[in-house]
Amino acid sequence: MLVGYIRALGIIIMKKNLIDIYDSTLRDGAQGEGINFSVQDKLAIVKALDAFGVKYIEAGNPGSNPKDLQFFESAGRLKLKNAKLAAFGATRRKDIRPEDDVNLQSLLAANTPVVAIFGKSWDLHVTEIIHTTLDENLRMISDTVSYLLHKGKQVVFDAEHFFDGYKNNAGYAMKALSAAADAGADVLCLCDTNGGGDPKTIGEVVKAVAAAFPDKKIGIHCHNDCGMAVAASVAAVQSGASQAQGTFVGFGERCGNANLSTIIGVLQLKLGYQCVSDKNIALLTQTARAVADIANVTMETGAPFVGLSAFAHKAGMHADGVLKSSVSFEHVDPAAVGNERRFLVSEIAGRNAIISKIQKFFPEVTKESEGAAVILKTLKEMEMAGYQFEGAEGSFMLLVTKALGKFKPSFDLISFKVLTEEPSSGIDTYSAIATVKISVDSKTQFTSSEGDGPVNALDKALRKALNVFYPSIGKVTLSDYKVRVLDGASATAAKVRVLITTTDGHDIWTTVGVSTDIIKASFIALCDSIEYKLMKDGKKKT
Amino acid sequence: MLVGYIRALGIIIMKKNLIDIYDSTLRDGAQGEGINFSVQDKLAIVKALDAFGVKYIEAGNPGSNPKDLQFFESAGRLKLKNAKLAAFGATRRKDIRPEDDVNLQSLLAANTPVVAIFGKSWDLHVTEIIHTTLDENLRMISDTVSYLLHKGKQVVFDAEHFFDGYKNNAGYAMKALSAAADAGADVLCLCDTNGGGDPKTIGEVVKAVAAAFPDKKIGIHCHNDCGMAVAASVAAVQSGASQAQGTFVGFGERCGNANLSTIIGVLQLKLGYQCVSDKNIALLTQTARAVADIANVTMETGAPFVGLSAFAHKAGMHADGVLKSSVSFEHVDPAAVGNERRFLVSEIAGRNAIISKIQKFFPEVTKESEGAAVILKTLKEMEMAGYQFEGAEGSFMLLVTKALGKFKPSFDLISFKVLTEEPSSGIDTYSAIATVKISVDSKTQFTSSEGDGPVNALDKALRKALNVFYPSIGKVTLSDYKVRVLDGASATAAKVRVLITTTDGHDIWTTVGVSTDIIKASFIALCDSIEYKLMKDGKKKT
Repeated sequence: MLVGYIRALGIIIMKKNLIDIYDSTLRDGAQGEGINFSVQDKLAIVKALDAFGVKYIEAGNPGSNPKDLQFFESAGRLKLKNAKLAAFGATRRKDIRPEDDVNLQSLLAANTPVVAIFGKSWDLHVTEIIHTTLDENLRMISDTVSYLLHKGKQVVFDAEHFFDGYKNNAGYAMKALSAAADAGADVLCLCDTNGGGDPKTIGEVVKAVAAAFPDKKIGIHCHNDCGMAVAASVAAVQSGASQAQGTFVGFGERCGNANLSTIIGVLQLKLGYQCVSDKNIALLTQTARAVADIANVTMETGAPFVGLSAFAHKAGMHADGVLKSSVSFEHVDPAAVGNERRFLVSEIAGRNAIISKIQKFFPEVTKESEGAAVILKTLKEMEMAGYQFEGAEGSFMLLVTKALGKFKPSFDLISFKVLTEEPSSGIDTYSAIATVKISVDSKTQFTSSEGDGPVNALDKALRKALNVFYPSIGKVTLSDYKVRVLDGASATAAKVRVLITTTDGHDIWTTVGVSTDIIKASFIALCDSIEYKLMKDGKKKT
Repeated sequence: MLVGYIRALGIIIMKKNLIDIYDSTLRDGAQGEGINFSVQDKLAIVKALDAFGVKYIEAGNPGSNPKDLQFFESAGRLKLKNAKLAAFGATRRKDIRPEDDVNLQSLLAANTPVVAIFGKSWDLHVTEIIHTTLDENLRMISDTVSYLLHKGKQVVFDAEHFFDGYKNNAGYAMKALSAAADAGADVLCLCDTNGGGDPKTIGEVVKAVAAAFPDKKIGIHCHNDCGMAVAASVAAVQSGASQAQGTFVGFGERCGNANLSTIIGVLQLKLGYQCVSDKNIALLTQTARAVADIANVTMETGAPFVGLSAFAHKAGMHADGVLKSSVSFEHVDPAAVGNERRFLVSEIAGRNAIISKIQKFFPEVTKESEGAAVILKTLKEMEMAGYQFEGAEGSFMLLVTKALGKFKPSFDLISFKVLTEEPSSGIDTYSAIATVKISVDSKTQFTSSEGDGPVNALDKALRKALNVFYPSIGKVTLSDYKVRVLDGASATAAKVRVLITTTDGHDIWTTVGVSTDIIKASFIALCDSIEYKLMKDGKKKT
């Protein structure tokens, strides 16, 4: 009896502090200007968010974007540890049955455990935008929720424009929620769709809703049009919401969605809520950077908690203060979120993190080894030149091997030439030709190849030449190719960073190259990719 | 008597609603990573902020940065309409007289009407960072304020780390404020120096301070380390602060300062406060963009109120909603802040949005026109091929012009060849050479150029050739270059999308090219960029 009471109390306390993170990078985030995900991008983001411990991932709107169904089919085969996938769509259209609504049928076809349904809660929208009666809108909500529940779905009801609706006609806005609640929705999510709300008002309204629906989980979904989406989401949680919706790095229509990486940092590290496990919060920075990287978006350097500058001290006084007492100019410990302190004048940070990374390959290297100093110096020089090894462990391992004097090249490049021309001189669609001359143990090999563009031609010619000496290269395929212009303002003369991901069916590795010439940058990454493969295999030659 | 009463009442009402904007872009903003201002930059920013109606401009710290004195000398000769300049520095050092403190003497030498003085209000900082007694710190504050007052200055007292100090030792933090207030400081500004505060707590503390100092103006100075600097500043104003400090586009150390362009938008357009005149608020967007431009920082496209995407609608449903009723998906009228509504051309955008965009160039095109159908069909085909026009309005306009049969090319390409080789045959660092042959009105031109990579070489050769016929091309510079690999899984044979942004000092436009060959994709975007320029100018030839 006492145990039951304590357990019940425990659950209540747990419930109070536990916040469900609901990420919509792949749906609402995809509505941001310049954001376009391939199916591969989406799968990679799902994996990153799942590994971090996000509870719900809203991954598409199969009704409005039919190619999302292809993604859901692949996503269904992922083995997720923490996250449940959600598909997103509207309530049934007016005056038809749910079973006759094609969008609802697409939602079911997505085959996700969770479905998020948005419905109107602002009377203006009912009459002016979807042109129906207030009563029919309520039926649209309850019919849809019941129907999905009946199909075995967990239903999140997104009350679109809830705060505007509540201001205009609170009675009707609450009726919309009741329609969803009575039909069995699991979560009532209040949306500030236009992003016009302020934290104070949003907090007050959430409090009123939480009081009116004591048995329902309340969600919050804010947009950043007033620059206060994070604060409004936090205020909502402080007022009783227990599901925070947003996008991991803040992508979204217009000014973006509430930034979940910031919200998680604030809630978990500053205000005592639990969003992910204590262990996983240290993955916050790497998860945010991975999501931005996959989306090919340069993350704001000043992004709270996870940005490159988030703990960068420039003013001498601040740097001095931090060295005397870190709390003097830092509101949290950078290590708590997997980020690091940087002093912009004298770069002394990150050393421990790097050493521990080196030890993964060469356990004998310690902070005091001579090798460590050489590696750190090389690393710093290469970073200054635009390299970045966070996503390119293949090249990092080669850098370490070289710095320790343990690297022997598998081949020497004598020369390459790549020609692109218009009109094309070939008889087929190839637009470029390349020649490559290499030597291995003083035997030379000269090959040429056509290709879809100069990099492809060069890639083919190089591998043709190497295959003569190393047949295992034949099994290697490139699975991803990314280009990032480092200094857009230098336009066509800008430095570019190329990342190439390679697989041999067994392992996957990524390598990096930097140059003002995209072909040379690609070539550097290609060579690293091959050297890594041969090193890993112990360089078996024919 | 009655008039006096009404006048007094009027003043009280005015005072309640009037918020002084205090911009520190040139001082705190300059501590942001990557921000560096020349004296000319600083003068240009002062002029832009003054024209907009900012009341105080904190423009430098002459004590820590002696070259700021050169700026203040020039700035003193500007005829400012709205703003007063402020110099910023610390209280006198411990155990010396103000007249013997070199930093204070530099502050006086800056010759500004206003001086902002920061002092310690967190006891930890007094004992751990500046190593003095709590009493001496209070004397440092009051001595400094009295001294400056005596020299005819208006004094703003910045209580550094006030919120951390208040939490740790509220009594001492309040004593620091009293020291400044009793000595005659005009404004008591409460600083959340580490950016760790939340709006709720900050609002509560401001309320307590405002109650304790009913005759003093209270200021608020927040940093964005929790992504809530705007919300915290707004909460402070709602709790009694009447001076809002920040930086106009949010530059600043670590995660930046409170963004004033957002704060002004929220306070003036959403919450009924007056920060600048009703007329000037429409200059908000152009002022923010000017400041970012002078600082050579690419403003976030999603910046609230002033960003390029702030009123950009991508989802078809949103665009349709806005066309039916603008309040349905917009929290304020974009024109109120001098920004504009944009409908993004994308696979999820609706037909209506695209038509309304076409009408900006060709008002005769309606939903029913034959031209509209051709445009939409072409658009869809090009999107299937990997094009994306949401960020490339230059290419979109050309597409429309072509589809309507109104396009005449300015030149014909006969051929180009681009060669990249390793080792490089040039004597300098150029890695690529290009030749281009074009014709204009059956006159041909053959040019060649070296470049930093193949795209740069081709760009230079093409513009060299065109310049012969169209001298206005000489004024055109490329300001941004972006590359997106569309299908990373095809690796080096993948399609790439290239976006090029161009300016002629007057207008800015972006164009797009897609190909499996990065050089061809770049060439397409380059040609569009030039055709757009010539079309816009009416194709003036020599």
